[in-house]
Amino acid sequence: MPEVVTIGETMILFSPTCTGSLQYVNYFQKQVGGAESNFAIGIVRLGHTAGWISKVGDDPFGKYLVSFIRGEGVDTSRVRVDNEAPTAVYFKEFHEMRNPKVYYYRAGSAASRMRPEDLDEDYMSKAKILHITGITPALSTSAKETVYKSIEIARKHNLTISFDPNIRKKLWSEEECRNTILDIAGKVDIIMPGIEEARFLLGEGSPEDYCRKFLGMGIKTVAMKMGKDGCVVAEKDIIQRVHGRVIDNIVDPVGAGDGFDAGFITGILNGWDIIECAKLANDVGAFVVTVNGDVEGLPTMEEVMEFRGERNVVDR
Amino acid sequence: MPEVVTIGETMILFSPTCTGSLQYVNYFQKQVGGAESNFAIGIVRLGHTAGWISKVGDDPFGKYLVSFIRGEGVDTSRVRVDNEAPTAVYFKEFHEMRNPKVYYYRAGSAASRMRPEDLDEDYMSKAKILHITGITPALSTSAKETVYKSIEIARKHNLTISFDPNIRKKLWSEEECRNTILDIAGKVDIIMPGIEEARFLLGEGSPEDYCRKFLGMGIKTVAMKMGKDGCVVAEKDIIQRVHGRVIDNIVDPVGAGDGFDAGFITGILNGWDIIECAKLANDVGAFVVTVNGDVEGLPTMEEVMEFRGERNVVDR
Amino acid sequence: MPEVVTIGETMILFSPTCTGSLQYVNYFQKQVGGAESNFAIGIVRLGHTAGWISKVGDDPFGKYLVSFIRGEGVDTSRVRVDNEAPTAVYFKEFHEMRNPKVYYYRAGSAASRMRPEDLDEDYMSKAKILHITGITPALSTSAKETVYKSIEIARKHNLTISFDPNIRKKLWSEEECRNTILDIAGKVDIIMPGIEEARFLLGEGSPEDYCRKFLGMGIKTVAMKMGKDGCVVAEKDIIQRVHGRVIDNIVDPVGAGDGFDAGFITGILNGWDIIECAKLANDVGAFVVTVNGDVEGLPTMEEVMEFRGERNVVDR
Amino acid sequence: MPEVVTIGETMILFSPTCTGSLQYVNYFQKQVGGAESNFAIGIVRLGHTAGWISKVGDDPFGKYLVSFIRGEGVDTSRVRVDNEAPTAVYFKEFHEMRNPKVYYYRAGSAASRMRPEDLDEDYMSKAKILHITGITPALSTSAKETVYKSIEIARKHNLTISFDPNIRKKLWSEEECRNTILDIAGKVDIIMPGIEEARFLLGEGSPEDYCRKFLGMGIKTVAMKMGKDGCVVAEKDIIQRVHGRVIDNIVDPVGAGDGFDAGFITGILNGWDIIECAKLANDVGAFVVTVNGDVEGLPTMEEVMEFRGERNVVDR
Amino acid sequence: MPEVVTIGETMILFSPTCTGSLQYVNYFQKQVGGAESNFAIGIVRLGHTAGWISKVGDDPFGKYLVSFIRGEGVDTSRVRVDNEAPTAVYFKEFHEMRNPKVYYYRAGSAASRMRPEDLDEDYMSKAKILHITGITPALSTSAKETVYKSIEIARKHNLTISFDPNIRKKLWSEEECRNTILDIAGKVDIIMPGIEEARFLLGEGSPEDYCRKFLGMGIKTVAMKMGKDGCVVAEKDIIQRVHGRVIDNIVDPVGAGDGFDAGFITGILNGWDIIECAKLANDVGAFVVTVNGDVEGLPTMEEVMEFRGERNVVDR
Amino acid sequence: MPEVVTIGETMILFSPTCTGSLQYVNYFQKQVGGAESNFAIGIVRLGHTAGWISKVGDDPFGKYLVSFIRGEGVDTSRVRVDNEAPTAVYFKEFHEMRNPKVYYYRAGSAASRMRPEDLDEDYMSKAKILHITGITPALSTSAKETVYKSIEIARKHNLTISFDPNIRKKLWSEEECRNTILDIAGKVDIIMPGIEEARFLLGEGSPEDYCRKFLGMGIKTVAMKMGKDGCVVAEKDIIQRVHGRVIDNIVDPVGAGDGFDAGFITGILNGWDIIECAKLANDVGAFVVTVNGDVEGLPTMEEVMEFRGERNVVDR
Repeated sequence: MPEVVTIGETMILFSPTCTGSLQYVNYFQKQVGGAESNFAIGIVRLGHTAGWISKVGDDPFGKYLVSFIRGEGVDTSRVRVDNEAPTAVYFKEFHEMRNPKVYYYRAGSAASRMRPEDLDEDYMSKAKILHITGITPALSTSAKETVYKSIEIARKHNLTISFDPNIRKKLWSEEECRNTILDIAGKVDIIMPGIEEARFLLGEGSPEDYCRKFLGMGIKTVAMKMGKDGCVVAEKDIIQRVHGRVIDNIVDPVGAGDGFDAGFITGILNGWDIIECAKLANDVGAFVVTVNGDVEGLPTMEEVMEFRGERNVVDR
Repeated sequence: MPEVVTIGETMILFSPTCTGSLQYVNYFQKQVGGAESNFAIGIVRLGHTAGWISKVGDDPFGKYLVSFIRGEGVDTSRVRVDNEAPTAVYFKEFHEMRNPKVYYYRAGSAASRMRPEDLDEDYMSKAKILHITGITPALSTSAKETVYKSIEIARKHNLTISFDPNIRKKLWSEEECRNTILDIAGKVDIIMPGIEEARFLLGEGSPEDYCRKFLGMGIKTVAMKMGKDGCVVAEKDIIQRVHGRVIDNIVDPVGAGDGFDAGFITGILNGWDIIECAKLANDVGAFVVTVNGDVEGLPTMEEVMEFRGERNVVDR
Repeated sequence: MPEVVTIGETMILFSPTCTGSLQYVNYFQKQVGGAESNFAIGIVRLGHTAGWISKVGDDPFGKYLVSFIRGEGVDTSRVRVDNEAPTAVYFKEFHEMRNPKVYYYRAGSAASRMRPEDLDEDYMSKAKILHITGITPALSTSAKETVYKSIEIARKHNLTISFDPNIRKKLWSEEECRNTILDIAGKVDIIMPGIEEARFLLGEGSPEDYCRKFLGMGIKTVAMKMGKDGCVVAEKDIIQRVHGRVIDNIVDPVGAGDGFDAGFITGILNGWDIIECAKLANDVGAFVVTVNGDVEGLPTMEEVMEFRGERNVVDR
Repeated sequence: MPEVVTIGETMILFSPTCTGSLQYVNYFQKQVGGAESNFAIGIVRLGHTAGWISKVGDDPFGKYLVSFIRGEGVDTSRVRVDNEAPTAVYFKEFHEMRNPKVYYYRAGSAASRMRPEDLDEDYMSKAKILHITGITPALSTSAKETVYKSIEIARKHNLTISFDPNIRKKLWSEEECRNTILDIAGKVDIIMPGIEEARFLLGEGSPEDYCRKFLGMGIKTVAMKMGKDGCVVAEKDIIQRVHGRVIDNIVDPVGAGDGFDAGFITGILNGWDIIECAKLANDVGAFVVTVNGDVEGLPTMEEVMEFRGERNVVDR
Repeated sequence: MPEVVTIGETMILFSPTCTGSLQYVNYFQKQVGGAESNFAIGIVRLGHTAGWISKVGDDPFGKYLVSFIRGEGVDTSRVRVDNEAPTAVYFKEFHEMRNPKVYYYRAGSAASRMRPEDLDEDYMSKAKILHITGITPALSTSAKETVYKSIEIARKHNLTISFDPNIRKKLWSEEECRNTILDIAGKVDIIMPGIEEARFLLGEGSPEDYCRKFLGMGIKTVAMKMGKDGCVVAEKDIIQRVHGRVIDNIVDPVGAGDGFDAGFITGILNGWDIIECAKLANDVGAFVVTVNGDVEGLPTMEEVMEFRGERNVVDR
Repeated sequence: MPEVVTIGETMILFSPTCTGSLQYVNYFQKQVGGAESNFAIGIVRLGHTAGWISKVGDDPFGKYLVSFIRGEGVDTSRVRVDNEAPTAVYFKEFHEMRNPKVYYYRAGSAASRMRPEDLDEDYMSKAKILHITGITPALSTSAKETVYKSIEIARKHNLTISFDPNIRKKLWSEEECRNTILDIAGKVDIIMPGIEEARFLLGEGSPEDYCRKFLGMGIKTVAMKMGKDGCVVAEKDIIQRVHGRVIDNIVDPVGAGDGFDAGFITGILNGWDIIECAKLANDVGAFVVTVNGDVEGLPTMEEVMEFRGERNVVDR
């Protein structure tokens, strides 16, 4: 039984073979992307066990998703197949002059049809950590209910709950988004928002203000991502900035946050203090952005150590 | 003002770079596919004018669609942009051991939001032919109403209405499909079904039976596609099989029916008898299946003539 | 615990992006190929469970192999990592004017370092069938000893042993090859050779002669592959030819034999008579050759059934 | 009738799939490039109408060119097909250690056969602006005469004439080039040279010197491009430098000048002062260099505005 | 010093990555093609020595051409570089419905500027065979003079002259073509025309008629190519048809004639009778058409022998 | 007879089409790489003659290697074909977060079977320079003996011996490596190590210390590579740092050292002083790293001069 369980939708990602408007891209590469499975793969690569709970369509894309994630060593025994809805797909668009954009084809997808009854309480009860994101409640009413049900199960069995707001304005109204995310935040142990997400949720303020507000909501641990400026972590008695190595050549920023989460939670599983957790989180995020794809760049602990150490030049 | 107008959804088509299950395809090529725009491009390439009426999303895929179809010389002045819904996409899967499959991501698409009010009666009234298919009424209630409204306009202004049932069981129930297609068939002048579609609509029977039934419904002209066996065409006093050249190496059968329709209607516009129309229809269909993509293989009249004539070997 | 266990080397396969001499091929696609893992994937896709026992290098190719095979649902819990030897690779060459060729880089590979101690008797003892091939004993002395040890374990625990000679003249001398293969043949329950392999092992003769000779060696069941002529199967009281559907367009013949084996053994696991086993074996082999790659074409039982049934033309 | 008309050759551009000498490039991507059509596409994308006058060969490359440019919304109704000469092609070569090189195959091309008689005075007379470049007079004597004829028509009908010297030393002798370009410059209203071109035409001097000299020749407006240093613009009472945002990662500098021209002339059409025109010109040029291809990066006004504004980070 | 010398233009060939009109092809592969260098490579691969005399531009394409041909073992010491003209390029177009087409960009190329003074009489005088084609005299007046000069040198030094008419109607008028080809034919020892070319040169007739006419012109040996029907060869006392193995799956027919020539002349160099020469010629042509590209499929003598022998099935 | 001869293994290099772990790379490009042939190609491109002595397998990869290197103008007349062992291959892995890695498949390769008897003393005796590296002695005992034999021949015939340690820890133990390299160093005239290699061989020290130690071993000239810091060169009376232009965008650092060697030795052949030799060496190394592949970026002397001079902006 895995140490970490997570719930969410994973999609087939079509990545353009060149930058610029998709209008002019001729070929796309099939990859796999989904915040929660990205996170689960990250956890496994860093040495722990993870289970991913989801639903996929009865189609070759659903088969590929599950094969890929199972291949990575994530437990997929609780992924269900829905015969009446497709596996979602999405497209990335990279442009030097603006942030990457994504185009979703996920409305009515198999994963959006997850229901509370799909959860296996016995399976979840044996884990140490439940990781959820703010994407799943945006997918559908039943998906939202599934998230709340998972929180209920986790609390009943004393799992630590970690939460990444992962705000997707394309999926719901700003108001519903803010209300739901804040409501869920009130029920979790660890929150790992981006600084812009904190601003959206809590209004203008400093990183330290946001940390204090989240702690004030009863959350025990805050790890707030600040892009190239690293992160700010906070617990009862401490609020601290932790810088990471700046990466000049960012190939694909998507997935960095999921890698950060996987690094941070791996530290928690290892019993580290939050500063150490943050350092690992920063490093994992750095690895992710240097490789095309959401998960292809996720490092092993050995790779992180090699990266931190001296480079051995005479070794070919 | 174009001689032919047609109404329907066009999607971005992602074509696999190899055969077999999409589970194992790494790269996909972006193309364009939609029965009605395929038909319109065919009409233009064969020397007439056509206008395509549709709706696309405010996204790079919608821009590409319209650019491509306008580039082909089809009038796209009546294509509208919908800011709230995406341009649809679909994937083809080729397998030696079974028919090609398609995976649609078109539910809730921009084109499914076409409404009767989107039709420009003045624009349509100047055409000679309205071409519709059985796909559009399957997209949504408003799309279905749009088709009926277009028939009403066409009849009012004495356009000839041509109709390809283009049955898509993935889009609606068999019963609703059969009832609607037959109802529309009762209002058109020319019907161009496949033999399997005739069987689905009319039950077991011979090609000649089907022709007689369609004529009995008040349709003036029937052109029934029979794959490698060519077609059967029928009018008041004539039912006749017309064979085409058999193509050994079929690269991509999708789009052949649309090419057939374009060939047949070009013959009608040229004032040809239905045997000549059928010959052109067969030849155009043959061209389409030898090239990957729905429209890339559509021939010019000059190419058809060259194909029919003797090959000139010493010409490099 | 899997119903079927198998032991062998799997390699990274580099497949050319065009036909002709590799001298002129610029790009190669990374795939996965190995007779025993091909077979195991086939078994899983047809609805049973399989475990693959092997060794891989501590390199990205070894990681990919295991991820891919685990992703396909094969149990890889008994695959070991060897820190001192690489994962093997090989290249395919397709040429219209001759049979495909392969170029191996497997001498001294991780898998060639498999030893009898690597086998987990407890794990194997719970299976119903042990499947081995004539490739593994050709890899090294320790690999050969591992095969013999696996036979010993299988016989001790009453597993049925199935054997595909899979003669690879590039790996050993003809004499050592013939002697070893025949020696192993004398210890197995089911043999599935190609007709050319039977000729190599037993000298000139008819298919029926070969079957009688194999039965005379104490083998209970013979399934001899005859390419486009299907196969000949034999048991105590029966020797019978079973024809399959002829495939015109063979894309990649490599892996067909492994698929045949998977089909035949699936029939055995289902308790079918050997004629039914042979029919499934033929069909699975047909699927494999129509798709590029060793395993990409392996069908599910559902796909086999669809292929056998009538094609449903009106279904897009 | 378009607001802007322009005359020139467009070629099929073959873009290498990697950097370095073309000797080692295996694959090339087909694109479209031509200073005047690049400009016309830029004008359309920024919200105005443009017509492109040219000649293409009766070949698939000519068909592609016209389809592509028509697809972009440029009026191509005055493009003629020449049955006796091919559409030109060219190849780009990118090398980190030197400026990009181009290899032309345009001698004797269809477009080089443009003649004064090909111009439709009525069509041109309804435009507001005629845009010409120094490439067209270098193509052939008849092409040069066509340019002079177009100037004559423009002056007769009070069109504003804008001129980009676009010096191509590969196409003619330095002396003929300098004399012709200066002669044409004496007949236009707006000139948009690069700083190096100004030096070639006018000898050593400061940007301000060049501006004064051009104004002294009777030109009303000067917009001189200075690469990463932005531009200098000048009119009767003003000579001013206008800086743009510096782009670190220049993917493909070719086409930047055409984009600059499109931005500047769009400002003119909008009635803006030349400082505002220059800002838009700089921004459009910046967009172009970040995307591979001459026209793929040309922005819409909406994209320029988004680029100038704050980036909205939480929007996926 | 090579046994065979040949003179002609070689071009960079851009081969489409899919079939159908080049209008829809996005990527092209760079290859090398030219009748005479194809022939020279064929000669070398079959075990003899050859020298190729030509001119290339001072550009990366010229460098690639020479590197490629020298790499194949052909002597390129007499290839000159022309600083003022480019290396020619051409594009192939494959279409199921018609013969392949080629689009040349060779007018004014470096090779068209070959002059009689470029020939090294000493170098040529040591060869046994001069091979020329009907393409070179069509390139330019100086190229034509070069061909005549080479014939003069060959006759002076008693070289056998072999000649492939290789009619290219795109390069000159039918009349000039016919007259020149027939004039050259009157000066050679061996002629290897296609049957269609014979018809073009000599009017309607049977293959035997054509042979007799060529022999009547003083030519000693005729080898007339008849596509899938093999060839007809003739000498003083013999006219005979020689059939080859029919190839079902022709990938690229271009270059087959050059391969045929190389096979035939190899037989001549080996001192074989013309029937044996014809068999080799047929087999070499068969190899060429099964591989994409003009020269990639040219076989070694060992490959021809393997193809003729029994296939060894058990050899992987 | 070439001025420079060199001995070593060249492999087929498979270069990934994207960065990151090879686990996720789908396509690889075939290239050619080997320290000594890289060097030889560099020498030829800079204007001198070179011969490469090696052994390849009787396979299409061996044919490609030899064709490619011969195509580049290197004399390959002394390359032998080994019928019993394959041509080696290797894979590159690029990762932003670490140095490139290589994965070799060269154990037991054809080149590792080079023997002293393979050397042609007469051929070597006519050269001016013998260039060897520390890779060849690591391949096998017979390869090591071949290197020592080549040194013996060179000294007998008064060739200058240049040596690049090129330490490959993957191929032998550190101790054997250090001892052998130092032993060979004692017999050569010019040594061109990297700074890290000097440290490995000689222990901690400054660049100047290393130079003095090498000079103290009897070596006449030292050129020590220091990556982006250029190099340090030393002779009897001089030790000097020579800086090169820093390259921001390093595409592929592999092969830079070989290019450096080619530049330095070209200077020696030209009779330049070692400062000039070092400048050329630095520039050649800079060219190599900006292009993907080991040899594709090697410049001609003309390109170096163009790079050093002013860039001519107005030249398209």
